Amino acid sequence: KHSKQEVRSNNDEVIKIEVNIDDQTAEQIGFAVDKLFENGALDVFCTPIQMKKNRPGVLMTVLLKTTNFNKIAYLVFKHTNTAGFRYQTMKREVMKREFKSVEFEHDVVRAKEYKYKDITRRKLEYEDCASVAEKRGWSLYSTYKKLQNLF
Amino acid sequence: KHSKQEVRSNNDEVIKIEVNIDDQTAEQIGFAVDKLFENGALDVFCTPIQMKKNRPGVLMTVLLKTTNFNKIAYLVFKHTNTAGFRYQTMKREVMKREFKSVEFEHDVVRAKEYKYKDITRRKLEYEDCASVAEKRGWSLYSTYKKLQNLF
Amino acid sequence: KHSKQEVRSNNDEVIKIEVNIDDQTAEQIGFAVDKLFENGALDVFCTPIQMKKNRPGVLMTVLLKTTNFNKIAYLVFKHTNTAGFRYQTMKREVMKREFKSVEFEHDVVRAKEYKYKDITRRKLEYEDCASVAEKRGWSLYSTYKKLQNLF
Amino acid sequence: KHSKQEVRSNNDEVIKIEVNIDDQTAEQIGFAVDKLFENGALDVFCTPIQMKKNRPGVLMTVLLKTTNFNKIAYLVFKHTNTAGFRYQTMKREVMKREFKSVEFEHDVVRAKEYKYKDITRRKLEYEDCASVAEKRGWSLYSTYKKLQNLF
Amino acid sequence: KHSKQEVRSNNDEVIKIEVNIDDQTAEQIGFAVDKLFENGALDVFCTPIQMKKNRPGVLMTVLLKTTNFNKIAYLVFKHTNTAGFRYQTMKREVMKREFKSVEFEHDVVRAKEYKYKDITRRKLEYEDCASVAEKRGWSLYSTYKKLQNLF
Amino acid sequence: KHSKQEVRSNNDEVIKIEVNIDDQTAEQIGFAVDKLFENGALDVFCTPIQMKKNRPGVLMTVLLKTTNFNKIAYLVFKHTNTAGFRYQTMKREVMKREFKSVEFEHDVVRAKEYKYKDITRRKLEYEDCASVAEKRGWSLYSTYKKLQNLF
Ligand code: NI
Ligand code: NI
Ligand code: NI
Ligand code: NI
Ligand code: NI
Ligand code: NI
Ligand code: NI
Ligand code: NI
Ligand code: NI
Ligand code: NI
Ligand code: NI
Ligand code: NI
Repeated sequence: KHSKQEVRSNNDEVIKIEVNIDDQTAEQIGFAVDKLFENGALDVFCTPIQMKKNRPGVLMTVLLKTTNFNKIAYLVFKHTNTAGFRYQTMKREVMKREFKSVEFEHDVVRAKEYKYKDITRRKLEYEDCASVAEKRGWSLYSTYKKLQNLF
Repeated sequence: KHSKQEVRSNNDEVIKIEVNIDDQTAEQIGFAVDKLFENGALDVFCTPIQMKKNRPGVLMTVLLKTTNFNKIAYLVFKHTNTAGFRYQTMKREVMKREFKSVEFEHDVVRAKEYKYKDITRRKLEYEDCASVAEKRGWSLYSTYKKLQNLF
Repeated sequence: KHSKQEVRSNNDEVIKIEVNIDDQTAEQIGFAVDKLFENGALDVFCTPIQMKKNRPGVLMTVLLKTTNFNKIAYLVFKHTNTAGFRYQTMKREVMKREFKSVEFEHDVVRAKEYKYKDITRRKLEYEDCASVAEKRGWSLYSTYKKLQNLF
Repeated sequence: KHSKQEVRSNNDEVIKIEVNIDDQTAEQIGFAVDKLFENGALDVFCTPIQMKKNRPGVLMTVLLKTTNFNKIAYLVFKHTNTAGFRYQTMKREVMKREFKSVEFEHDVVRAKEYKYKDITRRKLEYEDCASVAEKRGWSLYSTYKKLQNLF
Repeated sequence: KHSKQEVRSNNDEVIKIEVNIDDQTAEQIGFAVDKLFENGALDVFCTPIQMKKNRPGVLMTVLLKTTNFNKIAYLVFKHTNTAGFRYQTMKREVMKREFKSVEFEHDVVRAKEYKYKDITRRKLEYEDCASVAEKRGWSLYSTYKKLQNLF
Repeated sequence: KHSKQEVRSNNDEVIKIEVNIDDQTAEQIGFAVDKLFENGALDVFCTPIQMKKNRPGVLMTVLLKTTNFNKIAYLVFKHTNTAGFRYQTMKREVMKREFKSVEFEHDVVRAKEYKYKDITRRKLEYEDCASVAEKRGWSLYSTYKKLQNLF
């Protein structure tokens, strides 16, 4: 399935939730990350932190649309063991994006063109490149090298 | 001694202090962490960061009550070598909590019951479980497994 | 060249930019860090983060003066592959500083004296200590030990 | 699919491959990790390392059976950009294991019982617990809590 | 209590045990670290690793005397959830050490003098410096600065 | 200056030194890393580790030719505060390499072609790409994109 972060519109605000975790296993944290992505989190990532009493804890950060706070807050309490989390609103600066696609041997590879002032950048869609690579038994690196020139 | 973070009341705001450290030893940082906990910090944790000039630095994060800023700011300057730190206020979302306890072979084990909408979670107090484990030479894992069922 | 962070004036506000990176090599990230420092970033540092799909990503954090936002935002888009970043304003608490210097065998070593309430701290300038160490083939540790006593 | 590490037999030797990566994106590294698991690596994991020139690199570690070296070495060269890796043989100390299963509301949950001297430990199979949790919309934590008591 | 690592004799070999952990909480890992130190491990430390399925795991490394393997292996199985760990013998290169002490206002501060070829280094005992600092309400940094000159 | 790691010959053995550091600042560690590179270390990198007593320590790893052990061991003792380190010999598996170059607007960009069985990979020399990028005010990313096609 496709990352929501990459198709977000030009919202100028995002909520960042931070959860310190020291009483859940990595297996459970991985499961919680999946559930948050499946329910509309823009991004979820884990940072290793060193907590009191020799505990190798994890800081889970969740980025979300401001309109999605109630749902995500509920899921954070459901899927982590935390009894409380902190959060804030942050501004966002984004490039303008335009959807494109290229064709490679009958496979359509989606792409985006990003613009900010005089900067233009083109990015091939990861999922489509990975699928081209897997079909042909290529590495992802050589796949990108080949496909970048078509675009 | 008992972590203050776990007994905090339902404050809806917390201050987060961030300190980048590249001129103190890990020994001194460990000492500073202890001093901040002893003086009322809600939480203190360290994140590994990669700083300029091949320096494996540390980001020390301190969470505190807004009413405790002057005291903690002073201690951060005293126990770290930083010449300046950044900070912000963050909101908090917390579960309601109720204090409970269970008895296990004449040992009282404190616990908390947390509620948020239809979610209920019960957590045994770490210190008490660790003490049960140490008295009997058990691992913490099997201690939790045994005690969880009493609650 | 000399870190700008260490000579910043007593600004009471700083902007913090956060960029999640999963589509650039460590070589390119190192290059971007250099460019941001060369163009007036107060500090730039990288935190390891674990992103979706088994990706060992990097969170690049940039601290900057509020007046420098347009320039740094442009450079972040130029030198990273990100299509959008989040940012916020943070307050700063700083010690007062005074410039000093010591002489060691005809080398001038700059230093700063920092004060906050009753705390006074003196720090020798890293660049000058490193240069004393290199000239004489000393370790940095023994160089500091020797020079600290002159000050 | 099911992790090979958990069903390995009691081999008393394993090869550990270490690859330093500074010229591949996190996306490509994630893809390489998947390919190595799919081709019989016992385990693959990534450690954040700080390399020269401000590069936030990654150490990829691969554990494999000694009989699988040629195949895995080939795939490491194919899917990472490394021009050389280091490796060694390590001994393994393992618990004896026995396969079990429990039934929960018509779902079979596989389990293993591990023994080493007087230590006995039982572990429910992650995949099966995750599947029970997903079917019922539970968190993984409460699923384990329920299922552990059946075993 | 005093770290065993710092008083080890000049053994020229050490065993290194590596345990990947994804099914234990940080609280349990912290407890296990304490138990291993209390039972003669030379050193125990935790490295953040990124494991399959978005799991922020931990690599626990234990250093031990070769004569202590049976005891420590047993405790690793008891206090972690691992079903198997890998290990190897490593050589050690050490400085010669000599025990010293200094007196500071009626407190005895132990120290060691280390020598290797033409290098001589003196280190004050951490525990004693921390105790001097705590008695007087000093930071550890300024305590070392004062005590280093007595030695 | 140019990384030694990238021009190493096809040695089939390398020594790996591991040093746990908890009593040196990040500034001093960065300085030590530079000195080790300048004196022939094949690679030096730092891994964040969590040590006893809430210490955010650093594991410094040094890779070196077996013939260079005495020199590097001396420098490790000189530039770190460690009183002892552990080390081992590891085997190496390497691709065959051939030196190439491309020309881009009067700049010569060195490159290497690597081969292993049926895998061929070409890598442009980082230093030369960085220099092309800096001369023209380009990002490293777009520089690679342009230069890769010449080769
Ligand atoms: Ni806790
Ligand atoms: Ni995508
Ligand atoms: Ni507690
Ligand atoms: Ni500094
Ligand atoms: Ni992405
Ligand atoms: Ni400086
Ligand atoms: Ni390289
Ligand atoms: Ni499994
Ligand atoms: Ni000690
Ligand atoms: Ni597992
Ligand atoms: Ni190079
Ligand atoms: Ni130590």
